[in-house]
Amino acid sequence: MNKRDVYLSNMPLDQAKVLWRNALEERGFFSDHTSEDIAVDDSLGKITAEPVFARRSSPSYNAAAMDGIAVHFSDLVGASEASPIRLKKDRFQPVNTGNAIPENCNAVVMIEDVHYVSDDEVELHTPAPPWQHIRTIGEDIVATELILPEGHVVRPIDQGAMLATGVTAIRVRRNPKAHVIPTGSELIQPEEEPRAGQIIEFNSRILAGYLREWGADASRGLPVIDDPDKLEKALVEAAGKNDLVVMNAGASAGTRDYSAKVLAKVGEVIVHGVAIKPGKPVILAMIGKTPVIGLPGYPVSALLTMRLFVREMISQFLGLGKPACDHVSATLSRPVHSAMGVDQMVRITLGRVGETLMATPSGKGAGAVMSLVRADGLLTIPSGKEGIGAGEKVKVELLRPQAEVDATLVTIGSHDNILDLLANRLHRMRPIVRIASAHVGSMGGIMAIRREEAHIAGTHLLDEETGEYNVAFIKRFLGSIPLQLINLCYREQGFIVPRGNPKKIKNFRTIAENGNTFINRQKGAGTRLLTDKILRDENIKPQQIIGYDHEEYTHMNIGAAVANGSVDTGMGIRAAANALGLDFVPIAEERYDLIVPAEHLKDNKVSSVLQLIRTDESFKASITALGGYNLRDCGVVMYEQ
Amino acid sequence: MNKRDVYLSNMPLDQAKVLWRNALEERGFFSDHTSEDIAVDDSLGKITAEPVFARRSSPSYNAAAMDGIAVHFSDLVGASEASPIRLKKDRFQPVNTGNAIPENCNAVVMIEDVHYVSDDEVELHTPAPPWQHIRTIGEDIVATELILPEGHVVRPIDQGAMLATGVTAIRVRRNPKAHVIPTGSELIQPEEEPRAGQIIEFNSRILAGYLREWGADASRGLPVIDDPDKLEKALVEAAGKNDLVVMNAGASAGTRDYSAKVLAKVGEVIVHGVAIKPGKPVILAMIGKTPVIGLPGYPVSALLTMRLFVREMISQFLGLGKPACDHVSATLSRPVHSAMGVDQMVRITLGRVGETLMATPSGKGAGAVMSLVRADGLLTIPSGKEGIGAGEKVKVELLRPQAEVDATLVTIGSHDNILDLLANRLHRMRPIVRIASAHVGSMGGIMAIRREEAHIAGTHLLDEETGEYNVAFIKRFLGSIPLQLINLCYREQGFIVPRGNPKKIKNFRTIAENGNTFINRQKGAGTRLLTDKILRDENIKPQQIIGYDHEEYTHMNIGAAVANGSVDTGMGIRAAANALGLDFVPIAEERYDLIVPAEHLKDNKVSSVLQLIRTDESFKASITALGGYNLRDCGVVMYEQ
Repeated sequence: MNKRDVYLSNMPLDQAKVLWRNALEERGFFSDHTSEDIAVDDSLGKITAEPVFARRSSPSYNAAAMDGIAVHFSDLVGASEASPIRLKKDRFQPVNTGNAIPENCNAVVMIEDVHYVSDDEVELHTPAPPWQHIRTIGEDIVATELILPEGHVVRPIDQGAMLATGVTAIRVRRNPKAHVIPTGSELIQPEEEPRAGQIIEFNSRILAGYLREWGADASRGLPVIDDPDKLEKALVEAAGKNDLVVMNAGASAGTRDYSAKVLAKVGEVIVHGVAIKPGKPVILAMIGKTPVIGLPGYPVSALLTMRLFVREMISQFLGLGKPACDHVSATLSRPVHSAMGVDQMVRITLGRVGETLMATPSGKGAGAVMSLVRADGLLTIPSGKEGIGAGEKVKVELLRPQAEVDATLVTIGSHDNILDLLANRLHRMRPIVRIASAHVGSMGGIMAIRREEAHIAGTHLLDEETGEYNVAFIKRFLGSIPLQLINLCYREQGFIVPRGNPKKIKNFRTIAENGNTFINRQKGAGTRLLTDKILRDENIKPQQIIGYDHEEYTHMNIGAAVANGSVDTGMGIRAAANALGLDFVPIAEERYDLIVPAEHLKDNKVSSVLQLIRTDESFKASITALGGYNLRDCGVVMYEQ
Repeated sequence: MNKRDVYLSNMPLDQAKVLWRNALEERGFFSDHTSEDIAVDDSLGKITAEPVFARRSSPSYNAAAMDGIAVHFSDLVGASEASPIRLKKDRFQPVNTGNAIPENCNAVVMIEDVHYVSDDEVELHTPAPPWQHIRTIGEDIVATELILPEGHVVRPIDQGAMLATGVTAIRVRRNPKAHVIPTGSELIQPEEEPRAGQIIEFNSRILAGYLREWGADASRGLPVIDDPDKLEKALVEAAGKNDLVVMNAGASAGTRDYSAKVLAKVGEVIVHGVAIKPGKPVILAMIGKTPVIGLPGYPVSALLTMRLFVREMISQFLGLGKPACDHVSATLSRPVHSAMGVDQMVRITLGRVGETLMATPSGKGAGAVMSLVRADGLLTIPSGKEGIGAGEKVKVELLRPQAEVDATLVTIGSHDNILDLLANRLHRMRPIVRIASAHVGSMGGIMAIRREEAHIAGTHLLDEETGEYNVAFIKRFLGSIPLQLINLCYREQGFIVPRGNPKKIKNFRTIAENGNTFINRQKGAGTRLLTDKILRDENIKPQQIIGYDHEEYTHMNIGAAVANGSVDTGMGIRAAANALGLDFVPIAEERYDLIVPAEHLKDNKVSSVLQLIRTDESFKASITALGGYNLRDCGVVMYEQ
């Protein structure tokens, strides 16, 4: 075996794909699998392994297509209103739709055109062409004709057609059996309470779920601890029983290292290390004829890497060719950088604002599961590019239906806990509508409105000169855009502190004097501006505050840092302190408004939001329950231009 | 109860929908259903009944984001290449990605930047900003934040996010329980061999399959025979145990009549009879709080009517709003007529030929399951219109993914059994490609090429003057279109007769003299032209042939009519006789060619077909096995213009 294969390389993706494909083909992965016979009743969603031909014709007998009487057409030649023809009992027979046409009859007259002279005699006023109102044998399909080609995914209507033509069992392609092995001593089960350093084993659920979605029969093993012998045993056993094995390394690099060694011992490592991001340490290996894919530990890396290598394997195992992916063309809202020589996959949030579909790259790391929950698409920056600039057109692979993307209300700006409530209420009110929120601070929201990237921006920027909120900033940065500034709430800002306020936080002066640790919001956040204003007013230098440069992006992240003891305090809203069971030292009441460009006021997603905040009292009650809110101007237009 | 309700009315669809919706709302169909708690592991595809909030933050501890050492950032202030800083064992700790950051540490230095002086001492050349390479608690999501809104369909990634944040069970909306009752004494099970008048019970499978696809837990009952007491018992029992009941009348009108009476007895008939086609006799009723939908007997009518009334019910029961339907805009290839006052649903075959997406209405009756197997879409002609003209733009609801429609090779023209083989081989070779064939005869194919509706047309038209096939017709009707005429086969035409040829059919002369019954092909079919030429040559008048006016559209339908004894003989190809185990009296060898416009020769669907017929010997062998074919010119260009 080549030494290169065991140690982490940085192979170009194209080359890795070719090596892997060759290895799969050599070992018959795409061709050696068997098909199975199943009852048509069990065949829904299965793929035909052979063409299906009608065993019987449908209809299988000449059938009345109408309620009426069956006759012989020659008996009615010349019938008219002027010279009606009468038939005695032995020359006609009543039939209902679906009944068999009696011998010696070859036409049906509709009941509406039949005049009963007596129970035994009818009078008819028009001739009947032969085979009128008769569904002849094989009219729908003749025995031996093709019903379904090979490689067809069976739908309910196909089941009906097969059963109608006497086909009760068919040969279908067998789904590949896939097994997911989670590895890592740090893994615990979801129902256990994690200690520091322990990680809930959820990756295997995500991976098995998508393997099923792509067409595999996927099973999951229990986590294998970091022990080469145990891993070897688990791998060999899984490879013997399955068509493909997915191994999800623990998060530690150590684990990955011996994974490759174990695979090299019991099988062959085809590729270890591909120039992709995320997913570089992926292992593509074979144990006998069974492919084994070693995925990186982070959930985002694991899933994206599996999509890249395994999805197509399953699709081709099933003879379905390349998996169908929907793409949209969108405009990139901010630049993404990428290293030359690396294929980079970027999670994308999509939003249709006005006519333009904007694609916003997610800046989150590979550990962020929520970033994939929220992602609408994936952008691949090919290895030959160093990045893509803002405003460029990009092709984005959709991760949710385009209709959902198009029905997304895009809010960008300051974070407030009310936005979660709003998202949920709106989704209940109008199920197709989702809210996508990006928390980039008040100034970020204003800039998003300026770049036409958002329907709504939340903002709470205090102008120091006028003492007024938001308006001065709007005039300065959005002067030319017709818009309304609509109040959402007033809210209390203050210090989020542990329960009981053990460090007796009162104000920035005591924080500086007592050397309490602080966590700050990012530049451009309204809360950051408030912090800086207070520091200036009180003549405190930023250097006097320990942690002034330590930034987080949301009130909840400030709260989390306090809750876990990383810092003594941080500035945020009372709702965040309440949500996390922390205490709160109020400093100021501030106004939080929504900026809505006039052109979006008519958008029915936006008008639904406005209707909700203006008229729904139960919604307002649920806001008040969060704590620290005053809704005296909720829904009121504070300014218009 | 209003008398109108029991007897078949012809209520406008809009009105019926309002009445039905009101009845459903009054009885709490959309609101009274309960939700259920399930494990997150079992929640894939379920719909959240409540918003899901994070129970724990993720990460739940401060975690190393890189392999390296954990340090306190203040220890490294001022470090540089020129003045490196050394740390002793008690001031750093090695960490792997995912490890918890030790107490008193607040930064990670990557292993690549760590110089080990000894096992106990490291040297560092750069300072570390606080929280460098650390995933802080709640970086991904903070406890109490929204993970999923109410009404969200759970995906694998959502399961991961929930488990990652300590959510192991959630409340989801319960799927409605739906039950399908097939009725009719004529129904038998698929494994039984039908006698004349018996129908295989496959409708309930189709209906239950789609009910499941739309989100119901659907069950099927055994057929209930035509007996009001038995039906009443089955209905009352099903209504008591399910959220909705679908009853599929037998094909006879009698059945339907007492269905409504039984429903009026044990419940309330809200609507009986709607001005739609197909589906007019539909019954919308209530037994207590349980809606019961009585569908017409024909499979096409039953399914389309169920789509119209039940699909949205299920979607709204699940709180999903209106079901999502994909539509495309297409050009109607031939006119469709519709009665004023009736909403008509028309099955549509779609084909993208050149730039235009052509929509061709299917002319088949409501009994034709295969027409729905083959249908690509549905066109609704609203009640205010009398029809839609050829060439008009129409909005078609897609029944299969647009990508599949776009990858469909459209062949229109003469029927030959080879086309089935070709469809199957092509689908195997290139899984995305399907062949849609319309059998409208050779002249129909030529006209389809002229109207740019087909990629390929099969044709076998003998020019009486020149004795040559196809070319004279192409010059006359397609003179201005650059094209190639490519031979597919030579094939034997003759009389299809029962095994042993009991009526001693020899030629049209004996048929006329002996009064044998005949079945003809439709006008414009090549076989019809051959028939007419022979009759003229032999000086036989059409009136001398019994059944000359009785027309069928394919060789197989001719064969089926002979096989079931409806007629003594018909003209067709030997392959059709062979397929049905019939005998054959050869009359002529004819040439069957494919017309391919030059602009489609580059289309890769077309080139795949040409490659197949020109180079695939196993494909040729399978043609020869059908019987009656000669492939001496298969794939040869016979004419070009």
